[in-house]
Amino acid sequence: MTPGFSFDVVKTSTQHKGRAGLLSTPHGVIETPVFMPVGTQGAVKAVLGDQLLVEGTQIMLANTYHLLLRPTPEVIEAMGGLHAFMNWDRPILTDSGGFQIFSLGALTEMTEKGVIFKSHLDGHLVEMTPESTIRVQQQFGSDIMMPLDECLPSGVSKEVTAASIERTFVWEARCKQAYIDYPGKSLQALFGIVQGGMYADLRQIAAQQIRSLDFFGYAIGGLSVGESKDDMYPLVESTVAHLPTESPRYLMGVGVPEDIDAAIESGIDMFDCVFPTRVARHGSVFSREGAYNIKRKEFERDPKPLEVGCSCYTCQCYSRAYLRHLWRAKEYNALTLLSIHNIHYLIQFVRNKRQSILTE
Amino acid sequence: MTPGFSFDVVKTSTQHKGRAGLLSTPHGVIETPVFMPVGTQGAVKAVLGDQLLVEGTQIMLANTYHLLLRPTPEVIEAMGGLHAFMNWDRPILTDSGGFQIFSLGALTEMTEKGVIFKSHLDGHLVEMTPESTIRVQQQFGSDIMMPLDECLPSGVSKEVTAASIERTFVWEARCKQAYIDYPGKSLQALFGIVQGGMYADLRQIAAQQIRSLDFFGYAIGGLSVGESKDDMYPLVESTVAHLPTESPRYLMGVGVPEDIDAAIESGIDMFDCVFPTRVARHGSVFSREGAYNIKRKEFERDPKPLEVGCSCYTCQCYSRAYLRHLWRAKEYNALTLLSIHNIHYLIQFVRNKRQSILTE
Repeated sequence: MTPGFSFDVVKTSTQHKGRAGLLSTPHGVIETPVFMPVGTQGAVKAVLGDQLLVEGTQIMLANTYHLLLRPTPEVIEAMGGLHAFMNWDRPILTDSGGFQIFSLGALTEMTEKGVIFKSHLDGHLVEMTPESTIRVQQQFGSDIMMPLDECLPSGVSKEVTAASIERTFVWEARCKQAYIDYPGKSLQALFGIVQGGMYADLRQIAAQQIRSLDFFGYAIGGLSVGESKDDMYPLVESTVAHLPTESPRYLMGVGVPEDIDAAIESGIDMFDCVFPTRVARHGSVFSREGAYNIKRKEFERDPKPLEVGCSCYTCQCYSRAYLRHLWRAKEYNALTLLSIHNIHYLIQFVRNKRQSILTE
Repeated sequence: MTPGFSFDVVKTSTQHKGRAGLLSTPHGVIETPVFMPVGTQGAVKAVLGDQLLVEGTQIMLANTYHLLLRPTPEVIEAMGGLHAFMNWDRPILTDSGGFQIFSLGALTEMTEKGVIFKSHLDGHLVEMTPESTIRVQQQFGSDIMMPLDECLPSGVSKEVTAASIERTFVWEARCKQAYIDYPGKSLQALFGIVQGGMYADLRQIAAQQIRSLDFFGYAIGGLSVGESKDDMYPLVESTVAHLPTESPRYLMGVGVPEDIDAAIESGIDMFDCVFPTRVARHGSVFSREGAYNIKRKEFERDPKPLEVGCSCYTCQCYSRAYLRHLWRAKEYNALTLLSIHNIHYLIQFVRNKRQSILTE
């Protein structure tokens, strides 16, 4: 029981393992499967909260690593928590900070106690422990918190990975204990994270370990680090098989439409990724026929929207010709308008998938 | 008579020369005095059209120099004109391109016929004549067009300035003739521009010359090039005295609140300036107590809006603490939100001035 939270599977597909669910939080009910736009530093780049709402955003993700360093948890807590600070009254999920610490090359020391990393802003050393990341996320007051895990790069040996999931198990157990012993001021749910690299048997062990800790939901980590799709899809499917049916499942950092499609059919409920906004800032436009770049000469006098039939704000208001002009003229509005379209595309993609499960 | 347009002075102040008016255009009625945000390349930097509307924008300015080079008048015409291209259904004023040609150092040759300038984009040579700028602005279909004038830097001798106003007179006469001989597809009004540098007597001559050409409205040019306020204010006042009472008057490029205040009291009806958005992109925030920079440490935990009592979108939604964080984190949203506030500030400043004339 996690006060303020519940998860109900409304319907499971008869054709695959996908399901439609309702995830209730203190800041509203989320229809799953769901795509969560990423507001790394407490803001989705070039897109305002109201614009996210218009496109159907149900929950935002924010990165603990970045917010820990700036503006700091103390500032966010003093401002009434992350929801008030960001003026975002819907659900928020925060990660633990672990992924950035391991992937940004900031790690300087790892002990049983936790990690020490170097701030990318000013080089000062920061310690993060399982207990401290929970404390920080309590200061943020996010709806869903993630525990500290060790995030390995791809291509790590089985021996190293096996040792790593043991460390992660210990860390997550300590996160759970910290969460029980010292609850924050807000109602918050804690997920567990299953690691295990590219080894299905290690992921099975990890899944069994982590579910023994009884989290509200379960995430699959370490599958957005460059592995091939042929490797990823079976691993998602086999890992899901060892997770409880009644809990929400979150595939971390995966946001390419075809990967989301396969993962939903494996039973994943939640997704996040910076991909749609990052590629938008490089001119890339999502469409049913695949991504294309807005700068192409063929769009010079094209009166069509980015995608015919799309109901996003950008497609309701502007032509490819105008957006190409903004892009070539290096206008900020191009970043905003392409980001809005790509976020809408992924949200709608996942929503359509949900609808097809409900109506099959 | 300019079909589709009218200007009515609703009330003239009894305390100064300011007046409240209504300027009717084919795209709506504008309450004057009015501040016009500048969409240099067909977009206000970091602010969308809908956001401009929310803040009370009545008319936008776009720069012919920039749009001529990119995306080109042919593209804009093919897309249905500037209103359709930008998805902006309210009035648009376009300048002639002259100011940028003279001020960006692009001018390579000036003859009786017109000017030849070098594109800042790719270096190719472009000819602009009085006739061609009218033709281009007809392709744009803007509501208000400006004629080609010679824009001198500050500090030019009286002899050079005297010769310059003669050339400008000839050019504007040719613009008027082109406008009469070859009307565009849209209903458009043409203003005249009064130059004359820092010489009140030359400005009087120029005003008499230009009004003899019978334009719909009259602009005062050349007073946003670095002159001191002590020089500018009397020049505005004395020039206005030689312009017809029944026509709208536009002080080009002046957008500092105190200058607008003085100019309204001299009888100016229209203002444009990139100042509010340009300084916003450097972190500068307009307020009744003067401008301040959002990055200041004292705002770290400041829950107040940018200006207490401000009704702009930014002040309704976000605290100084959050905006300072966005600014320090180099988030695009900071540029958008500060620009919105500064535009709102100037629009509201001018609107309040209008209201005080109406209710005095």
